Amino acid sequence: MIAPQIQLRPGYDKRIGAELDVLLRETDIRYCVIMDRHGLMLAHREASWAPKPPAYDVIGSLVASNAASINALGELLGDGAMSEQIHKGEKGVVYIESVGTKCLLFMIFDVSVSTGHVRVMAKKTIKTLEEMLEKMEAEPMPKLEANFNMEANSLLDAVLGSLND
Amino acid sequence: MIAPQIQLRPGYDKRIGAELDVLLRETDIRYCVIMDRHGLMLAHREASWAPKPPAYDVIGSLVASNAASINALGELLGDGAMSEQIHKGEKGVVYIESVGTKCLLFMIFDVSVSTGHVRVMAKKTIKTLEEMLEKMEAEPMPKLEANFNMEANSLLDAVLGSLND
Repeated sequence: MIAPQIQLRPGYDKRIGAELDVLLRETDIRYCVIMDRHGLMLAHREASWAPKPPAYDVIGSLVASNAASINALGELLGDGAMSEQIHKGEKGVVYIESVGTKCLLFMIFDVSVSTGHVRVMAKKTIKTLEEMLEKMEAEPMPKLEANFNMEANSLLDAVLGSLND
Repeated sequence: MIAPQIQLRPGYDKRIGAELDVLLRETDIRYCVIMDRHGLMLAHREASWAPKPPAYDVIGSLVASNAASINALGELLGDGAMSEQIHKGEKGVVYIESVGTKCLLFMIFDVSVSTGHVRVMAKKTIKTLEEMLEKMEAEPMPKLEANFNMEANSLLDAVLGSLND
């Protein structure tokens, strides 16, 4: 089982999502996803006009493995991690950028959309997200209450039926 | 053993190299390599001012595996092969572009170099190379002469000493 590289504190999924909403509103991209470097998704948003989004977990794995192999190339060239990747196809563009050292933002948009504009807006979003994630990681993880285990067990018993019945 | 996707006919390594020389002269890139999609190199050139080039065989494998995984992503998005990839690091840029369906051209240059200019020049080179490779593949592979085997054996005998001595 892959361990997540970053653990979201309560409420942060919505706050990250709100930043992605801003990015979507100010550009013409179809889909944007923020995930950790292992490919585990933190939040995603899609334009209201875009068709059903592709399977993000599959794309996430491909993007994460791709980013890892490209970072190996960067290190081979004495350049450390590659912070920005653009893949252009016939119809679409996949744009991947680092968010801090642990996360990646990837965006999918049509070739007709200006990559330069997306790049400028994405850099703004990334700056905000980096500060947000840094602040979040400084916060302590919420502790479970002492009787959480017992309460959870009795809830499970109520739902599934107790083994003592 | 990996089989090459494309077999160069005699003289074509020099002709491809000459096209890469033109590309180097008209841009400020450091290194350019043309290889097949399995990562096997066809030709490479480096700028006279650039330091010792990196290990192309290692880079070639990384670039080829990367291109393959990104093509999988392209297909997942219903976009076929991704023809163009740009990876930006802190100091350098790796630019990969398809040459026909079987080959890749990859270039390494500093971030200070205009990607747009490299792109325009690379497209010209790629067009020439695509035509050249298409023409080459239509040519028959040169046949070995009937007595090649015997002549090669006697040459080897002359160099290494005959087993009958």
